Amino acid sequence: MKILIINGPNINLLGIREKHIYGKINYEEMCKYLKEKAEKLKLNIDIVQSNIEGELVDHIQEAYGKYDGIIINPAAYTHYSIAILDALKAVDIPSVEVHISNVNSREEFRKRSVTAPGCIGQICGFGIYGYVMAMMGLINDLKQE
Amino acid sequence: MKILIINGPNINLLGIREKHIYGKINYEEMCKYLKEKAEKLKLNIDIVQSNIEGELVDHIQEAYGKYDGIIINPAAYTHYSIAILDALKAVDIPSVEVHISNVNSREEFRKRSVTAPGCIGQICGFGIYGYVMAMMGLINDLKQE
Amino acid sequence: MKILIINGPNINLLGIREKHIYGKINYEEMCKYLKEKAEKLKLNIDIVQSNIEGELVDHIQEAYGKYDGIIINPAAYTHYSIAILDALKAVDIPSVEVHISNVNSREEFRKRSVTAPGCIGQICGFGIYGYVMAMMGLINDLKQE
Amino acid sequence: MKILIINGPNINLLGIREKHIYGKINYEEMCKYLKEKAEKLKLNIDIVQSNIEGELVDHIQEAYGKYDGIIINPAAYTHYSIAILDALKAVDIPSVEVHISNVNSREEFRKRSVTAPGCIGQICGFGIYGYVMAMMGLINDLKQE
Amino acid sequence: MKILIINGPNINLLGIREKHIYGKINYEEMCKYLKEKAEKLKLNIDIVQSNIEGELVDHIQEAYGKYDGIIINPAAYTHYSIAILDALKAVDIPSVEVHISNVNSREEFRKRSVTAPGCIGQICGFGIYGYVMAMMGLINDLKQE
Amino acid sequence: MKILIINGPNINLLGIREKHIYGKINYEEMCKYLKEKAEKLKLNIDIVQSNIEGELVDHIQEAYGKYDGIIINPAAYTHYSIAILDALKAVDIPSVEVHISNVNSREEFRKRSVTAPGCIGQICGFGIYGYVMAMMGLINDLKQE
Amino acid sequence: MKILIINGPNINLLGIREKHIYGKINYEEMCKYLKEKAEKLKLNIDIVQSNIEGELVDHIQEAYGKYDGIIINPAAYTHYSIAILDALKAVDIPSVEVHISNVNSREEFRKRSVTAPGCIGQICGFGIYGYVMAMMGLINDLKQE
Amino acid sequence: MKILIINGPNINLLGIREKHIYGKINYEEMCKYLKEKAEKLKLNIDIVQSNIEGELVDHIQEAYGKYDGIIINPAAYTHYSIAILDALKAVDIPSVEVHISNVNSREEFRKRSVTAPGCIGQICGFGIYGYVMAMMGLINDLKQE
Amino acid sequence: MKILIINGPNINLLGIREKHIYGKINYEEMCKYLKEKAEKLKLNIDIVQSNIEGELVDHIQEAYGKYDGIIINPAAYTHYSIAILDALKAVDIPSVEVHISNVNSREEFRKRSVTAPGCIGQICGFGIYGYVMAMMGLINDLKQE
Amino acid sequence: MKILIINGPNINLLGIREKHIYGKINYEEMCKYLKEKAEKLKLNIDIVQSNIEGELVDHIQEAYGKYDGIIINPAAYTHYSIAILDALKAVDIPSVEVHISNVNSREEFRKRSVTAPGCIGQICGFGIYGYVMAMMGLINDLKQE
Amino acid sequence: MKILIINGPNINLLGIREKHIYGKINYEEMCKYLKEKAEKLKLNIDIVQSNIEGELVDHIQEAYGKYDGIIINPAAYTHYSIAILDALKAVDIPSVEVHISNVNSREEFRKRSVTAPGCIGQICGFGIYGYVMAMMGLINDLKQE
Amino acid sequence: MKILIINGPNINLLGIREKHIYGKINYEEMCKYLKEKAEKLKLNIDIVQSNIEGELVDHIQEAYGKYDGIIINPAAYTHYSIAILDALKAVDIPSVEVHISNVNSREEFRKRSVTAPGCIGQICGFGIYGYVMAMMGLINDLKQE
Repeated sequence: MKILIINGPNINLLGIREKHIYGKINYEEMCKYLKEKAEKLKLNIDIVQSNIEGELVDHIQEAYGKYDGIIINPAAYTHYSIAILDALKAVDIPSVEVHISNVNSREEFRKRSVTAPGCIGQICGFGIYGYVMAMMGLINDLKQE
Repeated sequence: MKILIINGPNINLLGIREKHIYGKINYEEMCKYLKEKAEKLKLNIDIVQSNIEGELVDHIQEAYGKYDGIIINPAAYTHYSIAILDALKAVDIPSVEVHISNVNSREEFRKRSVTAPGCIGQICGFGIYGYVMAMMGLINDLKQE
Repeated sequence: MKILIINGPNINLLGIREKHIYGKINYEEMCKYLKEKAEKLKLNIDIVQSNIEGELVDHIQEAYGKYDGIIINPAAYTHYSIAILDALKAVDIPSVEVHISNVNSREEFRKRSVTAPGCIGQICGFGIYGYVMAMMGLINDLKQE
Repeated sequence: MKILIINGPNINLLGIREKHIYGKINYEEMCKYLKEKAEKLKLNIDIVQSNIEGELVDHIQEAYGKYDGIIINPAAYTHYSIAILDALKAVDIPSVEVHISNVNSREEFRKRSVTAPGCIGQICGFGIYGYVMAMMGLINDLKQE
Repeated sequence: MKILIINGPNINLLGIREKHIYGKINYEEMCKYLKEKAEKLKLNIDIVQSNIEGELVDHIQEAYGKYDGIIINPAAYTHYSIAILDALKAVDIPSVEVHISNVNSREEFRKRSVTAPGCIGQICGFGIYGYVMAMMGLINDLKQE
Repeated sequence: MKILIINGPNINLLGIREKHIYGKINYEEMCKYLKEKAEKLKLNIDIVQSNIEGELVDHIQEAYGKYDGIIINPAAYTHYSIAILDALKAVDIPSVEVHISNVNSREEFRKRSVTAPGCIGQICGFGIYGYVMAMMGLINDLKQE
Repeated sequence: MKILIINGPNINLLGIREKHIYGKINYEEMCKYLKEKAEKLKLNIDIVQSNIEGELVDHIQEAYGKYDGIIINPAAYTHYSIAILDALKAVDIPSVEVHISNVNSREEFRKRSVTAPGCIGQICGFGIYGYVMAMMGLINDLKQE
Repeated sequence: MKILIINGPNINLLGIREKHIYGKINYEEMCKYLKEKAEKLKLNIDIVQSNIEGELVDHIQEAYGKYDGIIINPAAYTHYSIAILDALKAVDIPSVEVHISNVNSREEFRKRSVTAPGCIGQICGFGIYGYVMAMMGLINDLKQE
Repeated sequence: MKILIINGPNINLLGIREKHIYGKINYEEMCKYLKEKAEKLKLNIDIVQSNIEGELVDHIQEAYGKYDGIIINPAAYTHYSIAILDALKAVDIPSVEVHISNVNSREEFRKRSVTAPGCIGQICGFGIYGYVMAMMGLINDLKQE
Repeated sequence: MKILIINGPNINLLGIREKHIYGKINYEEMCKYLKEKAEKLKLNIDIVQSNIEGELVDHIQEAYGKYDGIIINPAAYTHYSIAILDALKAVDIPSVEVHISNVNSREEFRKRSVTAPGCIGQICGFGIYGYVMAMMGLINDLKQE
Repeated sequence: MKILIINGPNINLLGIREKHIYGKINYEEMCKYLKEKAEKLKLNIDIVQSNIEGELVDHIQEAYGKYDGIIINPAAYTHYSIAILDALKAVDIPSVEVHISNVNSREEFRKRSVTAPGCIGQICGFGIYGYVMAMMGLINDLKQE
Repeated sequence: MKILIINGPNINLLGIREKHIYGKINYEEMCKYLKEKAEKLKLNIDIVQSNIEGELVDHIQEAYGKYDGIIINPAAYTHYSIAILDALKAVDIPSVEVHISNVNSREEFRKRSVTAPGCIGQICGFGIYGYVMAMMGLINDLKQE
């Protein structure tokens, strides 16, 4: 079972960026942590990151035919990227949206997800452990099909 | 570690209610399933359900001093119950909001959660497995404190 | 043919409550009147009332498998109870929404019905005779199925 | 007791128009059906139809002094015709608004009735039987005056 | 100097229609009154009325090349007729919008005029004398050109 | 018959201010012109101007018991001064709102009048002649009482 | 003079709930304090609390014919309970709405009171002393009738 | 292949109406031009025009069973005519909406088309050549069925 | 303990202004009444009134360092004066907002208070007795500091 | 005559992406088809595609001085890309916006085009034939200049 | 080169008012600082302040013909004073709007400037140095004319 | 002191793009001008430009640890790029937002800045001199820290 993890803008600044919201672990540490967790779950994962909306679309498109599932944290683009929504719908691979912080407790504009209707589910507020939960959610979902 | 699972209105009709959205498993089967899963995770859980908003508030209040975490599916009340939001903030117990369906893909009014800002996180779209994910999310969260 | 009539908050104050809007007949008189009318229409009716949103949900759920139709006047809850809407959709019994006054001629917020999409139809403005019309509407609807 | 039934735009296409919403009976059949029903109720009815908003206004005006009640299905104009609203208020004849489909379960814009505040009541979702219910509602209302 | 006075829907019911708002004088009396006033002002006026939006557009179009000014009371259409607005802009004849009642003191939707941007000015609240004021306003305007 | 004409902010800059909108005549010339016109109409007028919202309120208050009518051009305050609205309602003297330009053809925010519900009528778009029309409108109104 | 004090959801958690907003005194202490104050004012008071919207409606209804005044803190329900508004209007007993915190300084949704139009007045921001002020306000009001 | 071209209000004023927006060719010239173009495309066309919303509905209805396609320029009615939308949906003939000007570059209210969801496509901004493009679009569409 | 009472626009017209809303007592009588009440409460009060928004700001500023508390009835300015809000925040003196009528039962725009977030609390609907309640509220508040 | 065709995000997934909306022909087939059609129309075309908003801006900029016209399908970016709008306005080359599906019949957010005001016209709903229509529209437009 | 600096409400409380937002320097110190800076820039400046909206309008009007530029900090009035906007447009003197704090990072209502469209530019967030930047901006602008 | 100047989409078309708004100087000339000015101010500046939102995010991220300040003109992205806002907040380097034109005098959508809350201040309307003012603003700000 192959999963592609796609991270959106500024996720690469973890550990630097507003630590009271996003935590102290940096991006490389998170990637390592996720790979370890994936291994335990017998998942084959790849992780990509880009600050460019269209490159996130590219990554989603490239997953077509190659991955069984997508875990995506569209970060800021969550709230306005119809392009990402369209890409998720186009490739039609089971996808899960993850947010590190609880977006419901922040600015009004962070409460609306434009991209989530292209996913099977959404997880937010569990820090980087949310990605692990997404892996488990995807495994459970893929087993049932 | 003790967790209280609180289910809101019409969750008791699982297996009867709009099956294409909520699935075929009925409420008793779900409760049994969650207890088994909790046992494996070494969690001590209780499950309550009510159709009455104020009784959900009662349950949240009663958890104060007795439970380490709350998993709540406020169902319809998610979208307008300031009373539940206030109760969650009042007792200040780590809580997770769960939705069986992906509320982001449904009617406009289901996209807004009034109650989620009283929780540490939110999970939706994974069917009843979402409750299990919430248990794991809570365990992870409680360990870090 | 069995019909459950469910009355929402403050309907029990008929005859006391804003008489220029709701009329002078009191709740007991209305119940008696409806039973007489039902008898003539060869309908078997039960009437319940509650001020509690969740109890209205309970009543709708209890109708499942026991009644052929529901006549509901959700009163104030008409305008915000997604819980009642969900219950009506869940049990999927032919239901009719009734309002004693013409809600379209009153405050702006009374013009929107959250619960009506869970019903086959809606009647308003005919005083308590609206319930009788709802009975006839249900009979006509049930005959056609 | 004389009643004028006024039908708005596209009602004349019944039986052709979106049958899954409006049913299979055509306009002539409906008129015949309504006349039979009216006879049984000892009502004297006339039925008019127009696609032109202003002609509906004309019909309402012409009812002044000639009819005891109006049953109106303003169809599409329901949602924006202040002219029809003003006409109904001007002639001040007891009027009932009827919709064949349950407008509450359709597009957002069909949920708002501009014309209903000019009526004593509104009925929707009962197919063409709704007109018969409106007749009974009017009879009941006129008796009480 | 030739002026066309165009009256919209339900103006023909003056004296019948909501008298506390529109006064007791009927339509024929108003027409006579306006002709007398026009004569004193040495204006040549014609008066037309229609309940049909498109006929009001026809009247505006027919004024092209024949009248020096238009006085229009679009009544209900004031608040939504882009067709009348477009007609007024198309013929580009100095036009004045008149309302018998003070539309600013009534329902919210009567406060917005869609048609007024197609006119040189607007007068409301002076009863039928408003038409006379409009005549004087037009005379003053036409003199200055 | 005594009339107080009250001019709001920047009206004193007539002839300087955006001439393509407000014309070339300056404030003193306008005052003179209005006094001449008033004399012909056998009206006794006083004219005041202030840029200060509260002074306009003062002027309205001072009219109480001294003037038979008010003509007010609240200028910019038209669109937000609840204080002026309240003052007009408090003194309850027949008042007319005048605007030199056609406010309906300008910015969106100029289309809403907060103050007009405190007046018997409103006139706009006739340049400074609008004040003369307002005088005539007031005379006509006062005669009828 | 008999007054019923009705407290809404989570008020029973005073002293536990967000103390920086609601203060440190607990619910029992508050009740005792209010009874002492009432005695000094020669008022006969009863105090009830419920987390259930419909039970608050019940309490209001039960006051009918038994109490001279109501002091109500609908807490969270303030902002959406049309049912409570309708109950207050139905029983038509002089009522005062009290809020412990200054709701105007908090979240946007706390600034709107749905229930206040059913009361004679509203008091907020004075902590539990607000109830005492409400008592004095009621006494003053009842004396004047 | 028979096509009905339906023109809405004020289109008959082409060549007179705001020429900087709609061009200098008049309505008769346009009709002649369209007939020539249709002939080259081997299309059999009829052209009708009305200022009356309901007559446009009539024309759409009359096309039922007689024409293979409709080209409609609802002009002003584009932005509010639910009646025309309903008619297009009722007859279910492939229809194309045409606008002479680029409605997207004009007033805010011209950006919304109420009628376009009843068509297979929409063309705007190409002057009267837009009708010819619509013909070609219809031919292409009808061939594919 | 020194308190400054600041009254906004049109409060000086008490007894003249819409008596069914504001009562029959005039401004001088109210001032006298408040001084008597203050004396009994051992408060030293000054009362100022202005129709000018900026003078209300001036009064608030002048209270800085001289008064222990402010009671302000910003009247119409309540609903839009950010300037008064800023002044109240700037001087940071405990302030109470008072309204004579129950603003929640009136026009929609009177329900929003722009100025209240600059106060410790708000009182409305108790007539002029509301000022006395505000005095007691302030005393209670100042004692606790 | 040289035309640049610019395709936005996910257009490269034609034939894969939601086929019931976008059809079965894939992107390469479409490009071939468009080149053939262009040849027949004696147009010299280039086709580019990118998922990246800013690269679409780059392409528009690069067209400056090299192409006589632009055909652009901004896809998802249509609904929010002010950057593309600004680019189209900056280079000021006649441009046509094309959409494969009828965006007016889909989600609410697809009905608004942010980019169209930068074009001479817009075409939607004709599948890939819409590009051919755009070519013809551009030819017609360029001939007239 | 003569510049008038106009300060709006509560700016005179600098050093007292919310110091964490506006800084510790008081108004007199700021005036002195600005005069020194102006002298270095060879500018002749006058500084006025008022809490009264209409006096700010007066100051703008008095600048007509006497000053080459205006620097205005309308403070709270920024967000609603159409009167100030109109004054700036009327006198048509190059004006710059200055805000001490970054209004974009504060309450939602502080993000909208009603007055800025009457200025050539706007500066915010640089503390009192913003006025110096405005001087330099004006010098640069006036040189170019 | 090192400053990075980041220019957003279409800024590279200066001198070509809508010259009446953005002026005649081209991008290279502007860069040269800014370098000369920076030199005089003893600032070390680098200038980058991109049409790609995500590359602007990249540039902001790359500034981390290398530059003392950022001057950013996000152009079109100003109005919707939460990604840029997040990047500015993440790196937490003193930043200034610059706009060449006065965005407050243009389309409604240009009045809202999504990105400004990530900056210390904003400057608009001074043409390219605005960048120089931003330099001075940054110098002043950095000195104070």
